[in-house]
Amino acid sequence: MTVLPRLDLAAIDPAGTGPFADKEAAAAQLAVDAKAIGALQDRLHAEGTRALLVVLQGIDTSGKDGTVRGVFGEVGPIGVAVTPFGEPTRTELAHDFLWRIHAAVPRRGMIGVFNRSHYEEVLVVKVRNLAPAAAVERAYGQINDFERLLVETGTTVLKFMLHVSKDEQRKRLEERRRDPEKRWKFNPRDLEDRGSWDGFATAYQTMLDRTSTDWAPWTVVPADRKWARNAIVADRVRKTLEAMDPKYPDLDWSGQEFSVP
Amino acid sequence: MTVLPRLDLAAIDPAGTGPFADKEAAAAQLAVDAKAIGALQDRLHAEGTRALLVVLQGIDTSGKDGTVRGVFGEVGPIGVAVTPFGEPTRTELAHDFLWRIHAAVPRRGMIGVFNRSHYEEVLVVKVRNLAPAAAVERAYGQINDFERLLVETGTTVLKFMLHVSKDEQRKRLEERRRDPEKRWKFNPRDLEDRGSWDGFATAYQTMLDRTSTDWAPWTVVPADRKWARNAIVADRVRKTLEAMDPKYPDLDWSGQEFSVP
Repeated sequence: MTVLPRLDLAAIDPAGTGPFADKEAAAAQLAVDAKAIGALQDRLHAEGTRALLVVLQGIDTSGKDGTVRGVFGEVGPIGVAVTPFGEPTRTELAHDFLWRIHAAVPRRGMIGVFNRSHYEEVLVVKVRNLAPAAAVERAYGQINDFERLLVETGTTVLKFMLHVSKDEQRKRLEERRRDPEKRWKFNPRDLEDRGSWDGFATAYQTMLDRTSTDWAPWTVVPADRKWARNAIVADRVRKTLEAMDPKYPDLDWSGQEFSVP
Repeated sequence: MTVLPRLDLAAIDPAGTGPFADKEAAAAQLAVDAKAIGALQDRLHAEGTRALLVVLQGIDTSGKDGTVRGVFGEVGPIGVAVTPFGEPTRTELAHDFLWRIHAAVPRRGMIGVFNRSHYEEVLVVKVRNLAPAAAVERAYGQINDFERLLVETGTTVLKFMLHVSKDEQRKRLEERRRDPEKRWKFNPRDLEDRGSWDGFATAYQTMLDRTSTDWAPWTVVPADRKWARNAIVADRVRKTLEAMDPKYPDLDWSGQEFSVP
């Protein structure tokens, strides 16, 4: 395994803008990238032998839904399947934590997007002590093994941690509470999680340290500025799809004569 | 049950344009409607208590994929789940024909789109004699009962039959065979179905006669002109969502004081 450079959350500025000078530059590049992703997805679908899984993790208000809309809005609903993972149901809890995840991985030809994911097992489950510490400890290796299975069987795995500052989260929670069109997203329970800010920060750092593998690396995305966040994710998705280089199948019917009556 | 006017396929011109005078008028209205559908879907999602199921049926090349792209492209992948129904797997065949369909109906807050559907049971299964005639005969009533269950439990059901002419299908099959970016869609088997054109026409007419119910009516969409097809479907979807009139939940937190620390 290649040694990856350590992702140090404390050293990454949530207000960063990546390679983008300003909002206009980011918006222009995002428009180009989103269109390119759409065209690449069409080839991925036609090829029908591989898939792309995009995992989005981040605390409340870090912008997971907004990223889906901003980055995959151009692709259209045929090629992208978004799965949100909320609190597990009783049936899901009656299985191992990867059971519901495995059932939702994208089929060949598709881009699957997870809004939250199996990583909740080493985040909220860990911070709120919802499982024995030894089980959480084992989960890191189980996750790495599971993702290697996906990669070895044809699914490219991209993982984005949306990194938002405590100040920005306060602003967004206040806004959710006030805006009548956002109020339904506000959940008093989010405030509890906010109370465990440091616990979550530590859990995220451990997650990055132990599950950023060369087959399924994490990208930490500064998320205080929505325009930078979307442009950075789109850039990575586009480059990944370009590297996958999906091709229209070379079906040559010319040897056979079909007369269409 | 209200008596619905009979949908007579032979009397509906596949080259018709519905209420639209020309391509420009249809494109302009489609753009407005697609945007409106996106906004209505956002409210449906926030409301979280009802769903919309859109069933697309039509012979090969009638434009089912194109309709999804044209009508739901604006909505974004969070709110729309598209399920294509191909030839059933062995596991699916080991169950009743509605088993895989039921598993795929949209959850509350979503628009589900079926690209082909349970109606294959009274179309291809009937025409190719893949099931005993008595079983197919029973399927009409079973389908009506199933759809009534969906409607009574909060899912609005819209069914579109994309009506394309035999001439137009020939052109599109020829194009698929020639265009390197469309060739992967061409299937020599489609020609077999084309050979059973009259059988399919009869099966579609019987389907309309027996399953256009007041709780889940069919719309026959002239589909020779893609612009008319998309605009007609979008118009019906928009009006249906407007009639459903989903609302942002009236969560009023103002009585309680949450201080966001």
